[in-house]
Amino acid sequence: MTDLSAPPFSSRHIGPSEPEQQRMLQAVGFESVADLVAVAVPEAIRAKDRLKLPAAASETEAIAELRGLADRNQVLTSMIGLGYHDTVTPAVIRRNLLENPGWYTAYTPYQPEISQGRLEALLNFQTVVSDLTGLPVAGASLLDEATAAAEAMTLARRAGKSKSDVFVVDADTLPQTKAVLATRAEPLGITLVEDPLDGAPPECFGVLVQYPGASGRLRDFRAVAAAAHEAGALVVAAADLLALTLVAAPGEFGADIAVGSSQRFGVSFGFGGPHAAYMSVREGLQRQLPGRLVGVSVDADGGPAYRLALQTREQHIRREKATSNICTAQVLLAVIAGMYAVYHGPDGLRRIAHRVHRHAVALAGGLRRAGLEVVHGEFFDTVLVRVPGRAAAVLAAAAERGVNLWQVDDDHVSVACDEKTGAAEVAKVWAAFGAEGSEVTLDADALPASLPRESAYLTHPVFHAHHSETAMLRYLRRLQDKDIALDRSMIPLGSCTMKLNASTEMEPITWPEFAAIHPYAPAEQAAGYRELIGTLEDWLAEVTGYDTVSIQPNAGSQGEFAGLLAIRAYHRANGESGRDVCLIPSSAHGTNAASAVMAGMRVVVVACDSDGNVDLADLDAKIEKHRDTLAAIMVTYPSTHGVYEETITEVCAKVHEAGGQVYVDGANLNALVGLAKPGEFGADVSHLNLHKTFCIPHGGGGPGVGPVAVRGHLAGYLPGHPLHDGTPVGPVSAAPYGSAGILPISWAYIRMMGSEGLTAATEQAILSANYLARRLAPHYPVLYTGRGGLVAHECIIDLRQITKETGVTVDDVAKRLIDYGFHAPTMSFPVAGTLMIEPTESEDLGELDRFVEAMIAIRGEISRVASGDYDKTDNPLRNAPHTAESVTADEWPHPYARSEAAYPLPSLREGKYWVPVRRIDQAYGDRNLVCSCPPLEAYED
Amino acid sequence: MTDLSAPPFSSRHIGPSEPEQQRMLQAVGFESVADLVAVAVPEAIRAKDRLKLPAAASETEAIAELRGLADRNQVLTSMIGLGYHDTVTPAVIRRNLLENPGWYTAYTPYQPEISQGRLEALLNFQTVVSDLTGLPVAGASLLDEATAAAEAMTLARRAGKSKSDVFVVDADTLPQTKAVLATRAEPLGITLVEDPLDGAPPECFGVLVQYPGASGRLRDFRAVAAAAHEAGALVVAAADLLALTLVAAPGEFGADIAVGSSQRFGVSFGFGGPHAAYMSVREGLQRQLPGRLVGVSVDADGGPAYRLALQTREQHIRREKATSNICTAQVLLAVIAGMYAVYHGPDGLRRIAHRVHRHAVALAGGLRRAGLEVVHGEFFDTVLVRVPGRAAAVLAAAAERGVNLWQVDDDHVSVACDEKTGAAEVAKVWAAFGAEGSEVTLDADALPASLPRESAYLTHPVFHAHHSETAMLRYLRRLQDKDIALDRSMIPLGSCTMKLNASTEMEPITWPEFAAIHPYAPAEQAAGYRELIGTLEDWLAEVTGYDTVSIQPNAGSQGEFAGLLAIRAYHRANGESGRDVCLIPSSAHGTNAASAVMAGMRVVVVACDSDGNVDLADLDAKIEKHRDTLAAIMVTYPSTHGVYEETITEVCAKVHEAGGQVYVDGANLNALVGLAKPGEFGADVSHLNLHKTFCIPHGGGGPGVGPVAVRGHLAGYLPGHPLHDGTPVGPVSAAPYGSAGILPISWAYIRMMGSEGLTAATEQAILSANYLARRLAPHYPVLYTGRGGLVAHECIIDLRQITKETGVTVDDVAKRLIDYGFHAPTMSFPVAGTLMIEPTESEDLGELDRFVEAMIAIRGEISRVASGDYDKTDNPLRNAPHTAESVTADEWPHPYARSEAAYPLPSLREGKYWVPVRRIDQAYGDRNLVCSCPPLEAYED
Repeated sequence: MTDLSAPPFSSRHIGPSEPEQQRMLQAVGFESVADLVAVAVPEAIRAKDRLKLPAAASETEAIAELRGLADRNQVLTSMIGLGYHDTVTPAVIRRNLLENPGWYTAYTPYQPEISQGRLEALLNFQTVVSDLTGLPVAGASLLDEATAAAEAMTLARRAGKSKSDVFVVDADTLPQTKAVLATRAEPLGITLVEDPLDGAPPECFGVLVQYPGASGRLRDFRAVAAAAHEAGALVVAAADLLALTLVAAPGEFGADIAVGSSQRFGVSFGFGGPHAAYMSVREGLQRQLPGRLVGVSVDADGGPAYRLALQTREQHIRREKATSNICTAQVLLAVIAGMYAVYHGPDGLRRIAHRVHRHAVALAGGLRRAGLEVVHGEFFDTVLVRVPGRAAAVLAAAAERGVNLWQVDDDHVSVACDEKTGAAEVAKVWAAFGAEGSEVTLDADALPASLPRESAYLTHPVFHAHHSETAMLRYLRRLQDKDIALDRSMIPLGSCTMKLNASTEMEPITWPEFAAIHPYAPAEQAAGYRELIGTLEDWLAEVTGYDTVSIQPNAGSQGEFAGLLAIRAYHRANGESGRDVCLIPSSAHGTNAASAVMAGMRVVVVACDSDGNVDLADLDAKIEKHRDTLAAIMVTYPSTHGVYEETITEVCAKVHEAGGQVYVDGANLNALVGLAKPGEFGADVSHLNLHKTFCIPHGGGGPGVGPVAVRGHLAGYLPGHPLHDGTPVGPVSAAPYGSAGILPISWAYIRMMGSEGLTAATEQAILSANYLARRLAPHYPVLYTGRGGLVAHECIIDLRQITKETGVTVDDVAKRLIDYGFHAPTMSFPVAGTLMIEPTESEDLGELDRFVEAMIAIRGEISRVASGDYDKTDNPLRNAPHTAESVTADEWPHPYARSEAAYPLPSLREGKYWVPVRRIDQAYGDRNLVCSCPPLEAYED
Repeated sequence: MTDLSAPPFSSRHIGPSEPEQQRMLQAVGFESVADLVAVAVPEAIRAKDRLKLPAAASETEAIAELRGLADRNQVLTSMIGLGYHDTVTPAVIRRNLLENPGWYTAYTPYQPEISQGRLEALLNFQTVVSDLTGLPVAGASLLDEATAAAEAMTLARRAGKSKSDVFVVDADTLPQTKAVLATRAEPLGITLVEDPLDGAPPECFGVLVQYPGASGRLRDFRAVAAAAHEAGALVVAAADLLALTLVAAPGEFGADIAVGSSQRFGVSFGFGGPHAAYMSVREGLQRQLPGRLVGVSVDADGGPAYRLALQTREQHIRREKATSNICTAQVLLAVIAGMYAVYHGPDGLRRIAHRVHRHAVALAGGLRRAGLEVVHGEFFDTVLVRVPGRAAAVLAAAAERGVNLWQVDDDHVSVACDEKTGAAEVAKVWAAFGAEGSEVTLDADALPASLPRESAYLTHPVFHAHHSETAMLRYLRRLQDKDIALDRSMIPLGSCTMKLNASTEMEPITWPEFAAIHPYAPAEQAAGYRELIGTLEDWLAEVTGYDTVSIQPNAGSQGEFAGLLAIRAYHRANGESGRDVCLIPSSAHGTNAASAVMAGMRVVVVACDSDGNVDLADLDAKIEKHRDTLAAIMVTYPSTHGVYEETITEVCAKVHEAGGQVYVDGANLNALVGLAKPGEFGADVSHLNLHKTFCIPHGGGGPGVGPVAVRGHLAGYLPGHPLHDGTPVGPVSAAPYGSAGILPISWAYIRMMGSEGLTAATEQAILSANYLARRLAPHYPVLYTGRGGLVAHECIIDLRQITKETGVTVDDVAKRLIDYGFHAPTMSFPVAGTLMIEPTESEDLGELDRFVEAMIAIRGEISRVASGDYDKTDNPLRNAPHTAESVTADEWPHPYARSEAAYPLPSLREGKYWVPVRRIDQAYGDRNLVCSCPPLEAYED
């Protein structure tokens, strides 16, 4: 029988067809991909064998296998609480946002003009947080409540007046928050002190209160806050957003900072994530906020426009002076939470909260009447019950009835009510406690009388206009239509690997069997998850050549941090706690340095030569100087310049020889998979970016997933979790398996690609980058190349000379690309005045050629500026992007034609993307910081 | 405990909030909705009780119940064949088309300028059909293969030269096709003759051949075709599209007409539907094609543009002279099938077909080697096996292994291979036959040597450009973006009830437990389906006041036909076969008359008075004249004029008194649900449109579902099916339960609305229509009103005087509305020169007001034409719609401003919809008929 197999998934994932690939090879000057790779990739790092992975499954087979894994998870009603609560994702939001590539394939809104839709959505989220917490400035989300609390701790330390090294933690704080705080505090020399907070807190620079507490207890922290302020400390409230619709806001009882999770605003459990955490601060602290912040500015026509504000705070600019290594936010989840609030409005949210509370009250009342002891009299949703010696039995009885409760200890069980709790669930819980006969009675509310919610919230019209499904649907469509995501055109971002996020990969994540599992559900209920995670970790180890992988870090930054913690713990275990110097090449992404500082290391910069490679002489000198204190080197491979450095094995050997460990940043792993393994060519640890190489969509700026991979000697130092057996290193994320809910995506990708598909993808990525470099080289200088004049999976084109000669800047080219329907490449990283282009393997030749055509056309426009044919300041480049409104204006004041503005290429006449705003004034927005929804009058002329 | 229930789904489905409703009531002049309804709806027809339906479920509860029903269906591998084959819907197509409201909520492309995306998609479908069948003109889909065959039969009768009344049917035709042909032939006086076609066919006007046959046999029909042509008969080939990638096309072996199903091109079983059937014809027959036909024309700027061609053929224009009553196509499914071909391309399709065939060959070979008799030597995918006396046992053995086969009789089993068949399935089938040991060997192909496929197909670039998932995703997005669907703005179509298609309603239809059930699967495997269908039929009976409902008709037209057949059979059973006159008011939709003719009735038109109501005097006269032959009257209620006629009960009584039956067309049921029941106020039979009142999305022009509802005395005459026990009336659709796969939508709608929600929806629909009428009345005359000056659920505005005075036509207003971002209301139906507007209950007040604002602004523009301020022929109305290209042109030749063209209202500056083409020249396209993808050169300037 001839080959009867269906075409492999890889032929759908990889853009160019075989004939297209041949044409590209011809352009680059090679006979075959193998020839190209043989020249491009240094022999010294080449992997010997093909990857040991199961043969590629078809899409149908992969879905069937995932179905099998899903079926091994058991969906019970989880009333476990502890920061995770069941919620209803409105179907209109799930289908048209979470399941819509127009939203999930978008990139981080660094190009604000083509991101107005998601920026508005994030502004809604910020407004929700700011309104509910009663604090004026909220960021665009953080990774999870525990890391948000840790960020708040460091914020309090640097912003407060106290010289103390002590951070006081409410004893009734969520266990995962305590654990992550501990992980983060220790390297920074912060002493954590747990305190019941019954009186004034001990001397400290900050206090964290949990509101309501992990035990459900709802307390008035006014006195605690006043005492803390008195002593010069800042107050952090970890608060439940839903509860805040009914009780006083943190900003009203004295908190300086609020953090928490927005998970219960419509985002499924996902066995722990991803969910959007939030942080808001009082006036005066906004420039200290970690993470991204959306603000309002104006565009070139003076209209309001959104963009990321105060970016100079961020780690990629501040490097080793950064106070946080946070890059990725949880944009997709923050957008869902914001839309949940838009859909329900303030009345709807209050009604949901009231229902949750009333069910908790009814539950407690029934238990009390049955003679059980309910520990706290005041609570929002969680009821703590004392059942001496019976806790395990109650849990088992509840599980038999399909309900998960939480065993606090042998004598206590807690029960958290949520949006889905109804009379049936209450009755089951009663029965589990042996209180079958109970009935709902008219008990009084259990909210503290001293904490009424008096201030209004969500008064902005956006929270009042989209309450019907039709209105919501159209609002989502309208915002989506403002943006460029992968469903419109390629996003050629260097180092960000914007490849296909296949529908088959995405489908399982909204199946209830994956979405509806509480992170603390009993292990046997998550058997499918655990198998999937174990398999994925094994596959990732195989792909990277490491021995062990932990998928806990829920962003690349956390993976980096975890990797450095492992190195640190390893040195300490070897009695070398003095090793604290981290070498970082000058070309590195700023996050590397920020992570090193967080891990308690001192950053020493290693110079790069004019080709962008590590300067070996300087490396030798730095190693020599810090030989006794050398902890590690952090390098990116291929380099941030998109080149396979020939010397990588030498670099590794030198560092090892001096007793240091080698950290290879996995940002550019898409250039290696199947061809080379960091764990084999000399590295000890890497973090991977599943949202880059392994197809988790960027979601408009998150979720990211950043597993950490280590060689055997570091395996004992991977992140632990309070729920699991003790390890020397604490957790870096709130949930034991991080953003488990989206791991099926990467699992499916590897499963459907197999060794051959993954390798072919890498090869195509290299070919595509070299094709672009070759086609663009006659028009723009390509900055760095390696052997044979080849690049790796991305290329940098240098505009500095062009700018000097013509005044046309990188910004002008980037914004002009919008008029051509494209998202700009990475701007001015790693070298100012350049553009870094990464096509990925998923773009077909037609799209690559369209991009080249646009870039060449833009080069022609630049030439016209140079020749004086175009005005130096009034030309299509400087005025880009052009909105439909500007090009259709009755008066056309420019010396070039409207058609040149709108349709510089004939192909644009078919399906033109119209940008909704003109070029945005970044500085204006930072000078006039507005970070919540502006009043409608702002839109009037 | 206070009311802790979540807001009901009805508050999401119904657009206006309570305060908005109050504002609307105020505008209309009523205190409450009850007051309004009391005046608007005649007391005589008001239902006494609330609907007896279960209390409304929440979205979460409804999904859980549907999950429960789904779990009662069993998904086995169905190798049953008989016109239904398992297939893989590419995930990128399922998610971004079938599950995307931008596609599924679109209306029929009567406004071609805002439908270019779906028209292009349909043109792809037509090209697939035309190429594969080798016949030059294909339509945009029909309802199912069986009804397509019936349409082909009547086409052959009217187009052929033979005077014979005989239509010869290949004995090896699908059983459901034979049955539907019989149903359709009898009222028209056509004699069906089944023939093995071993020699020349008997004298006839047409012959239908099944290719391959129901038994799998693949024959060369050249001689049959030649003999038929010789005798003046036409040849219809019912052909399998996938097989046609490997064997000679019908057009090549002499067929004049080809019909069939495109289901196996990526459309799930859905327990029988919906699937798109196809029809293609040879040159000379194109003007005889039933159903919709997409053609290419030019727009006002001379660019190519798509639109529906040859509409003068259609039943709504030809009325009782129509030769078919087909209205709805299966657009959404045809689009999927077309996209499946786009995604796979010709090579991919050939590869799939080859794989299917090779598995069938392997299967047959293994059985033969095990000593079993394979009946046919030449086949494509279906293997007929002789197993004397063992057929039932083989089926049982296969079912045990998870495979459904087909028992032809006690001695024969047939096995159909499909796209999903692999070695594992083949092995299971072997085992079921007791041929466990068989192995795949290199048997020769089993395709007849005389039937090679030699002609090329799918050579158009569109079938070669979108083979990567990324490319496919972007193609879908690009097409979707060209169109207006409900996800952008309201579609105020009179009589078409474009209400919300809620996400929760849509979700279950792509669950495998509903999607993957073969219509002929054993009954126990479809237990959930049968319960859902039974419940839905009961609920629909309750809502309409009838006794029995059949959901078999898969479009309103088929429901009408089934209803009239029931009346016909009833009269015959009563010995009154002479009753064949069907009274139809002059205001009726043309389909009514076409259906009556198809049911063998003579149409007699009853006049309407100047208010649009049935003229009772004329009715009396017509009844008197036809008293002995009166079969029925068909009326629409509320009338097609959107008015509750006071006299409806009188009309019913008069007809009954004369021995006739009353047919109430359910098109306007959205004005009655919960308030009045046709089955109670005098009607005997109705068809409903689930795609109007019961939320099945329009899909861009189908699927529709048109259940027929009858009072008890007609219950015995509902459509039967060859698979079920005999009934006096045959089937009207191929599948026993019609388009079962989408019935969960209507089930969910009723389940989530309950009696109160459904009634509130009707009330709001009435209020919204009256609100629009009241707001528009000062600007445009409202044509018809009933009691209190009120309309029902839609209103007609009259432009005739305006046109006379200013030259501005209904067309101008409709096309100008596009510039304002709206789909036009229904044009010139039921009265030429008017617009009929139906807002539905799902539009909130903001959207209604935006529409009113647009209509008022347009009225202002008309006034400027009248005053001479605007040029009579060069004004924004006449030139509408304006593309971005036209408004940004370097030269602006018009006397009005660009801003007046593009942004006549300031609100349009936020999220403007840009129409992709200018006004389309309808006549040009009919004169120059092009019905498959035009070459790319057509798009060059």
